[in-house]
Amino acid sequence: MENLYDILALGFDPKRTHVFFDSKSIAALYPLAIRVARKVPYSTVKAVFGFEPSTNIGLVFYTALQTVPCFWPSWAEGRSVPCLIPCGIDQDPHFRVTRDIAEGLGYPKPALLHSQMIPGLLGEAAMSTSGDRPENALFLNDPPGAVERKIRNAFTGGRATVEEQRRLGATPEVCSVWALWRTRFAESEEKFQEVTAGCRSGTLLCGECKSQLLERVHSFYRHHAQAREKVKDWAESTIITAAPKAL
Amino acid sequence: MENLYDILALGFDPKRTHVFFDSKSIAALYPLAIRVARKVPYSTVKAVFGFEPSTNIGLVFYTALQTVPCFWPSWAEGRSVPCLIPCGIDQDPHFRVTRDIAEGLGYPKPALLHSQMIPGLLGEAAMSTSGDRPENALFLNDPPGAVERKIRNAFTGGRATVEEQRRLGATPEVCSVWALWRTRFAESEEKFQEVTAGCRSGTLLCGECKSQLLERVHSFYRHHAQAREKVKDWAESTIITAAPKAL
Repeated sequence: MENLYDILALGFDPKRTHVFFDSKSIAALYPLAIRVARKVPYSTVKAVFGFEPSTNIGLVFYTALQTVPCFWPSWAEGRSVPCLIPCGIDQDPHFRVTRDIAEGLGYPKPALLHSQMIPGLLGEAAMSTSGDRPENALFLNDPPGAVERKIRNAFTGGRATVEEQRRLGATPEVCSVWALWRTRFAESEEKFQEVTAGCRSGTLLCGECKSQLLERVHSFYRHHAQAREKVKDWAESTIITAAPKAL
Repeated sequence: MENLYDILALGFDPKRTHVFFDSKSIAALYPLAIRVARKVPYSTVKAVFGFEPSTNIGLVFYTALQTVPCFWPSWAEGRSVPCLIPCGIDQDPHFRVTRDIAEGLGYPKPALLHSQMIPGLLGEAAMSTSGDRPENALFLNDPPGAVERKIRNAFTGGRATVEEQRRLGATPEVCSVWALWRTRFAESEEKFQEVTAGCRSGTLLCGECKSQLLERVHSFYRHHAQAREKVKDWAESTIITAAPKAL
């Protein structure tokens, strides 16, 4: 539920939002999941996910469940409703399987949008918390002091000394702070180009760049915390708990 | 639901009967099924059931669901409640897997009672309807005429001629009608011994034996049809639809 509050607070419309929880929505998901499961042989998921004999049978079945939201709109409305799935590239294989079986079940193939990962603050490819490196990621419930500390310590594309950076410029493409500007914190394309040019030319030093970014991040956190409180009133009502009709 | 009516009509007490339907009870079963699934590697179900690469992932997962009723009483009551599973031998492998993982999940191992199969009326090992041989089985909704016809045509242990049977006796152990006497239609041990001795000695011929059996079968069907109507009022209320508590 905490994750759901964070997602809904980004601006979802209560009237047009429907949420599946694997646990809370299982009565709604299961009838369709078993129809999917019948179409997917073990050899397929083994090849797609590289399952080993030691893989547990819950994981083997999981793709069937993951598939259901793609077909749900068609099931619920009794007509062919196309479905767009925005997801990280790591979830893509599930939906490749889904696309293979969709037409056999009479549903349209889902289309996918691959979301870009935000690089980690320590210079890693993704802002993940795998392992025990909380400093690699901003959490939406981090207090302002932690946000400030993490960004101040974040890996950048800067040079070893101020003098060198003034003379040679820095490298935005490798910088975790620049990635944040790009992701959502530059309020306009102009601002983003100004930051990028300042970085590359050496006129905008990393400390000043981080200060400007922090203003925007703090503002986002304040807005998000307020929005998050408001969605708690209706978040539960978005969760689907029953199948659309008897099969 | 039709199967449930037939089962409940055999004499279950509404107050002490709880029924799981994989479909209707999935919200109740699933939280425990995924805990089970995590403990069962694919290699185990492959070895136990002889799964092939072409086996669908629903079947691979199914043992996890089949296991849940064994642990349900303990889960619901929050203490260790032993569980006895009466089942056909064909369901035994699921519960072998269950026994292997029970203690790792903190539940007692289920005990099993293997029910004996009723032989088929055509002389097959089980009164099953595999294939298209409806004459091999009595159905609980067969009209009296069909019951009579099937039993009159049933395979027996009798001889080729009456004369021969009077002289040599018949063989109850191979007879599908004798199996019905044994299963439930002899009202006493004495009656069963009388039928068996009459058969073996040649004094009770197959036609007369079938007539005596048919009286009892018709009586059972009449009683069953009445009992079946009565359980319809409360059958639905026995179905478990929610987990005993939030996990």
